[in-house]
Amino acid sequence: MDKILRVNMTNQKVTLEDVLEKHQKLGGRALTSQIVCNEVPANCDPLGSENKVIIAPGLLGGTNVPLSGRISIGAKSPLTGTIKESNAGGVTGHKLAKIGLKAVIVEGQAQKGLYILVIDGQKGTLVSADEFASLGNYELVNKLREKYGSSSGYITVGPAGELGLRTACIANTDPDCRPSRVNGRGGLGAVMGTKGLKAIVILDSDLNSISYYDKEKFFEESKQVVQFIKEHPSTSVYRDYGTAALVNITNNMGCLPTRNFSNGQFEGADNISGETMFELIKSRGGQGRTSHRCMPGCIVGCSNVYPDASGNELVAPLEYETIGLMGSNLGIDNLDTIAKLNYLCNDIGIDTIETGAAVGVAMEAGILPFGDGVKTIELVESIRDNTILGRLIGNGTLLTGRVLGVKRIPTVKGQALAAYDPRGLKGLGVTYSTTPMGADHTAGSTLRAQVDHRKPDGQAQASRKSQRIMTLFDSLGMCMFTMPSLGIHIQTLANLVNARYGLNLDESSLIQLSIDTITAERDFNSNAGFRSIDDRLPEFMYKEKLPSTDTVFDVPDHELDWVHGNEG
Amino acid sequence: MDKILRVNMTNQKVTLEDVLEKHQKLGGRALTSQIVCNEVPANCDPLGSENKVIIAPGLLGGTNVPLSGRISIGAKSPLTGTIKESNAGGVTGHKLAKIGLKAVIVEGQAQKGLYILVIDGQKGTLVSADEFASLGNYELVNKLREKYGSSSGYITVGPAGELGLRTACIANTDPDCRPSRVNGRGGLGAVMGTKGLKAIVILDSDLNSISYYDKEKFFEESKQVVQFIKEHPSTSVYRDYGTAALVNITNNMGCLPTRNFSNGQFEGADNISGETMFELIKSRGGQGRTSHRCMPGCIVGCSNVYPDASGNELVAPLEYETIGLMGSNLGIDNLDTIAKLNYLCNDIGIDTIETGAAVGVAMEAGILPFGDGVKTIELVESIRDNTILGRLIGNGTLLTGRVLGVKRIPTVKGQALAAYDPRGLKGLGVTYSTTPMGADHTAGSTLRAQVDHRKPDGQAQASRKSQRIMTLFDSLGMCMFTMPSLGIHIQTLANLVNARYGLNLDESSLIQLSIDTITAERDFNSNAGFRSIDDRLPEFMYKEKLPSTDTVFDVPDHELDWVHGNEG
Repeated sequence: MDKILRVNMTNQKVTLEDVLEKHQKLGGRALTSQIVCNEVPANCDPLGSENKVIIAPGLLGGTNVPLSGRISIGAKSPLTGTIKESNAGGVTGHKLAKIGLKAVIVEGQAQKGLYILVIDGQKGTLVSADEFASLGNYELVNKLREKYGSSSGYITVGPAGELGLRTACIANTDPDCRPSRVNGRGGLGAVMGTKGLKAIVILDSDLNSISYYDKEKFFEESKQVVQFIKEHPSTSVYRDYGTAALVNITNNMGCLPTRNFSNGQFEGADNISGETMFELIKSRGGQGRTSHRCMPGCIVGCSNVYPDASGNELVAPLEYETIGLMGSNLGIDNLDTIAKLNYLCNDIGIDTIETGAAVGVAMEAGILPFGDGVKTIELVESIRDNTILGRLIGNGTLLTGRVLGVKRIPTVKGQALAAYDPRGLKGLGVTYSTTPMGADHTAGSTLRAQVDHRKPDGQAQASRKSQRIMTLFDSLGMCMFTMPSLGIHIQTLANLVNARYGLNLDESSLIQLSIDTITAERDFNSNAGFRSIDDRLPEFMYKEKLPSTDTVFDVPDHELDWVHGNEG
Repeated sequence: MDKILRVNMTNQKVTLEDVLEKHQKLGGRALTSQIVCNEVPANCDPLGSENKVIIAPGLLGGTNVPLSGRISIGAKSPLTGTIKESNAGGVTGHKLAKIGLKAVIVEGQAQKGLYILVIDGQKGTLVSADEFASLGNYELVNKLREKYGSSSGYITVGPAGELGLRTACIANTDPDCRPSRVNGRGGLGAVMGTKGLKAIVILDSDLNSISYYDKEKFFEESKQVVQFIKEHPSTSVYRDYGTAALVNITNNMGCLPTRNFSNGQFEGADNISGETMFELIKSRGGQGRTSHRCMPGCIVGCSNVYPDASGNELVAPLEYETIGLMGSNLGIDNLDTIAKLNYLCNDIGIDTIETGAAVGVAMEAGILPFGDGVKTIELVESIRDNTILGRLIGNGTLLTGRVLGVKRIPTVKGQALAAYDPRGLKGLGVTYSTTPMGADHTAGSTLRAQVDHRKPDGQAQASRKSQRIMTLFDSLGMCMFTMPSLGIHIQTLANLVNARYGLNLDESSLIQLSIDTITAERDFNSNAGFRSIDDRLPEFMYKEKLPSTDTVFDVPDHELDWVHGNEG
């Protein structure tokens, strides 16, 4: 029977609880958000003792359905002040699901000291981690694996999390034990870090709690899923070029963020494209890999291992959002520099999107020049060093822009936009504006929607549809890169859930689960003080034409309000 | 006939307009707030071109009523995001009223360059001020008076205003041409500065546009006012010790902010009290003055001139809020250091309250030690130098605390509390919470209310009453130090307004003017995204007992919501 592991950091008590009846059909984002809504006061200090970190695999986690092992982490975000869910790949989602932990709830706050939660089967123990204070994620995991083994899963925070910085992320290990699969957005690492929790170790276990209401049916549907994914043309693109395939696509569309969102086409795009990276990785050889799996059982393999000129691993993976925000958005056209920056962010434990956007704003303020990779590396290092400027960048784009007096601050609800300028991809602009999560591309991309991306028409509809499907995928634990192949086969996903849990869901009841989740999240935000006026892109996006598309963002307010409004 | 001078900084056009019918009975805060509500979009960028600076004397400005020359300045605040009115003494209120300018409206934004508005009679002209860029207020006014004379009035911003820092204030000259009478709160100097307006010169003029509906009655009532003020015991206290008399009073009450609001009694209070200052000024002689008038016709003289050991003026005036925030709140018990800090703030053009609170937060973060006057002076100087840390402090307490990771951030709606800890003076806590202005003691003090200041009972009622009367005083242009003597003679104030304007107001219609003003301000804030959840003190005030009083703030939320609620 699935259980909840509750970890009280104030008194260091760890208890195993039954799952509430009403939560038994929930997983991933649906579960983390409902627990946050139930247990976290909406007006609490996100870095105070009343906030909680909720860690949950999806409804299909732990099964053999490919790409189903995403791990959701939820809390009240210290970056946005909203409710937040951010999910990641790696091995930890499947591991938690397999041992029958539907969620881990971390609450309270240690008065002093730093701790590791060791999960052995369904038993959790807190042990001192004082010796690991201030360690970067890579060194931390290297030390932990010496003790707990390479087959265990690790959920960790770097120094940024300990410092309570609002860009701090939470890292999960991949099958090679790299702490590089990141719950990146919303500063969740600061919540975990300020509670005094440096790491969670999920010990390798033979325990398999996964049971099936109808195993045969489940495996049959699962085979179907494999087929759908393998057949879809997007799969081979993801395998060869990874998400970096998007660089040329968005650059051609004119929505690749360039020099702090002042343009949507980058003259150096070719140097940082997925195609260029593919050739470079192949030619450099050594430890480089053009395709790599972030979780067991993945049949896409969008991940990669990026090597330096000598073939030694620089970072893995190197992905589109990082290339967009720490490359073109900073005027940097060198993949080695971007890879180094990515490594540093992973090690310090900060979100590459938020950090890239914050550095872009600092560049606009004249703190360092656009295109200066050396100074950017120094600046990111200064976050680890806890300098004043480092703390500023480490607290994100909005605070950086406010303090430095910059007008062009690319944030919604205090969170930086991802690597798509919404003046050239307006449906995503609707998502940035209206998702309860702050600007977040994973909350509902419209890149594949059949609309004219530069026109306002139909964007609200496209965004709403995508937001609801993504909320579902995030609740199932499914990777968003199955959206192209499985987004049109929701009934198959329902069949899987039914065969696993003995339910009788159909497509519309799965979508209703998403609507209920979003509604609960919006209620939380409303209680935290958010209103429709907060569901807007920054002013400059309405007023400054994006040179590459000659468009401003012009989806009308009433359409934005319609997306999750009562009429919905 | 009173006119409005409208100054468009975008195209440098200055026009004289008639006063709208509905604005003819308004002055000071009532007028600035109504114009902001009419003309400024609630969701605009406070430092953008859509915000406006509204400068207005009160309804009794320009007359011989003593202490009636306060000047109100209103805008959307870049510090709080709310509507804002902040008023000051000095000569400029009376001067504008006398030449028949009911308000000056500064709108738009200069694309480049810095300007001075020269007001000659009712004619306004913009002239270049590029040669004065980055000048501190003292040097600026010294240069301006060489050209425009010592009998003119000056409204200026220092370098902080030009830099758009959210602590930037607006300075008005006193009768000795010191730029030391300050519209301090809310960062209004940043609004003026970023519009490209460095100074307003009101040339000395023989023009007297003041007319009376019933002059004899007016002068008769005015004599009555003089009598009320002279007879009141508070008057001689203000004359001898200035506002600094409060140091011993609040220290004894246990609500003198000490070391970033971590205590309410300061062991060094005696060194910085009004009584000590009085003796020191007398003993040092020279340019020192224990009493001084900030505006012509004042019969209180709460101002002073604080001299150094050689008798040379260090700053004038040195007042309670500055002593509280830059003295006890920083653990500094040396009046010379506080005077020097006050001078620097005046010169750079930053609010001493907000700056003191921000430095207190920086001290708590360990950036500099409590009590270190030398390092505090260096830190305040760094604001002028536009360093990263200087920009941080210069952007106020909330941003400073957020970036530095401090929990104890003494702000409401992003504005620092004044020098009264609300756990020991709970009625003022209600005012801090509920005034549309962000934490602001001048919005409605309850120091003299007949309540037990440490208990929650009756505080909401006391605050509401005080807020309404203060709104009235701010609309009449009356100094708040006539509150003790005139707050019980509202009908006399109504008689004055009636005799001046030919109206038929009574006490209740004057109070209704205040209620209407507050309602309009709250509507603006609501449109800007504020809700009742924002009408609260910071969390630590509810949770951490103030050691000196052994109390937390415990006025219930529903009583806070009652203050300006529908039931009101």
